[in-house]
Amino acid sequence: MKVGFIGLGIMGAPMAGQLIAAGHTLYGQSRSGVPQALLDAGATACDTAADVARNADVIITMVPDTPDVAKVLFGEGGVAEGLSAGKIVVDMSSIAPVETKEFAKKINDLGCQYLDAPVSGGEVGAKAGTLTIMVGGPEATFETVKPLFEKMGKNITLVGENGAGQTTKVANQIIVALNILAVSEALVFASKAGADPAKVRQALMGGFANSKILEVHAERMLKRTFNPGFRIALHQKDLALALASAKQLEVALPSTAIAQQLFSAVAANGGAGLDHSALVKALELQAAHTVTPEA
Amino acid sequence: MKVGFIGLGIMGAPMAGQLIAAGHTLYGQSRSGVPQALLDAGATACDTAADVARNADVIITMVPDTPDVAKVLFGEGGVAEGLSAGKIVVDMSSIAPVETKEFAKKINDLGCQYLDAPVSGGEVGAKAGTLTIMVGGPEATFETVKPLFEKMGKNITLVGENGAGQTTKVANQIIVALNILAVSEALVFASKAGADPAKVRQALMGGFANSKILEVHAERMLKRTFNPGFRIALHQKDLALALASAKQLEVALPSTAIAQQLFSAVAANGGAGLDHSALVKALELQAAHTVTPEA
Repeated sequence: MKVGFIGLGIMGAPMAGQLIAAGHTLYGQSRSGVPQALLDAGATACDTAADVARNADVIITMVPDTPDVAKVLFGEGGVAEGLSAGKIVVDMSSIAPVETKEFAKKINDLGCQYLDAPVSGGEVGAKAGTLTIMVGGPEATFETVKPLFEKMGKNITLVGENGAGQTTKVANQIIVALNILAVSEALVFASKAGADPAKVRQALMGGFANSKILEVHAERMLKRTFNPGFRIALHQKDLALALASAKQLEVALPSTAIAQQLFSAVAANGGAGLDHSALVKALELQAAHTVTPEA
Repeated sequence: MKVGFIGLGIMGAPMAGQLIAAGHTLYGQSRSGVPQALLDAGATACDTAADVARNADVIITMVPDTPDVAKVLFGEGGVAEGLSAGKIVVDMSSIAPVETKEFAKKINDLGCQYLDAPVSGGEVGAKAGTLTIMVGGPEATFETVKPLFEKMGKNITLVGENGAGQTTKVANQIIVALNILAVSEALVFASKAGADPAKVRQALMGGFANSKILEVHAERMLKRTFNPGFRIALHQKDLALALASAKQLEVALPSTAIAQQLFSAVAANGGAGLDHSALVKALELQAAHTVTPEA
């Protein structure tokens, strides 16, 4: 398949690499140029996003935020300029659900199909081809693109119409942040009450308190290994998106707002680059106590 | 073993039943008398908690709240009056960790041992003998009582010294409440954004957002089956305990406070007797939207 890939950064480059390795013809374009490793593997560098769209049948975008997608698709020299009827645009960035529906409509108006297909799993998942991919869009289009998704990810779900993929990603980031907050409040409480937080975690893992976060992130808190992982600065971006979208949709997210403020507290103390499990530090500051297990 | 059991309500009666079935001699006392079924099975009814303590070697208490334990142990005709050196008091109620340490010290001063051993798993777990039991106290005492615990529960952990069992139970109730809140915010957001909340839940179950609560309680939200389960009124009691203990310990629990307020909002709308997954109704009220899946 002739695939275009716009945005070849930390996530995009390994994802594009998986597609080339699977035998697809790849046309790339990125703000900082196409990485040499991809060129060596056979990728063709294009000057503009429009050129990518002229050459490829499926055009994937993987850029930081909603305005970046808007610019890459509809700005000067953008994808829209190079599209012709029947092509497919797949936005794998994590951006706003509401704007995504507008982008899809504008692409549809050009006689093309649109999928929103944000991922989770980070750089590790991108390199291993094990990303979770949450997709919104028409089922037929999903089936056409699925062989590409299957090279980049493992857990691939068509959730609903355009916007549903981005909505699911936001829901994911809300739950992950709040489950980190849940574990943080519980462990700081338990530790300050004099219990060994490591044993408390162990006792809770069999019951209703169990979660992927209790398994993975609580251990990072106890071992004080806050190297990312997933950076607080990125989770702050995702929760900003959640809270802005919630305002548009008229939904109140009280605990998400708390989590965002606590991330800001950790960032204010120099922790923006730490793993998001370092949210616990905000509660530790407030309690003047660290969740250190007994030896 | 000669076992005393004080508090033979919804939880205590089936727990005591497991002990009789296992061949232990049971001395019972309860505010509303010893249930006929236990008497038929061979239990001996005592007039006072002191009498229970005079007859039994291990005295278990299972009553609603901290003041009830104080009264049953140290009030007139209470356990302390009937204790003699070498006996063991096991409080399986869910009460305050700080007061628990005081109770243990007073029992120790009488030459006796104390375990705090609160449970989770509810009436269903009590009847099936599959409770989770979180224990604080001396290891030797734990080993002595373990054969009794094994008749009442499955997942039995000695977490630490006296108070650690109650601390773990509080930590459990904090995480469960906040994971319910996490799923509630995510599903109300997703549903109001136009995605099918059932499909969003399905897509999230493979990744970092997964939890026992996403598996069990999110399904209750989607199916609108809010019959308990675990009543909001009881979870309100547990979070009140968490917040009061946190104040004593100087720990800030911002999101636990939010969850408590949202439980109050559901209770204000007549929902105190609903399952705690009905917390979602507070967010639905605020968003004027219900998380109804597509047909």
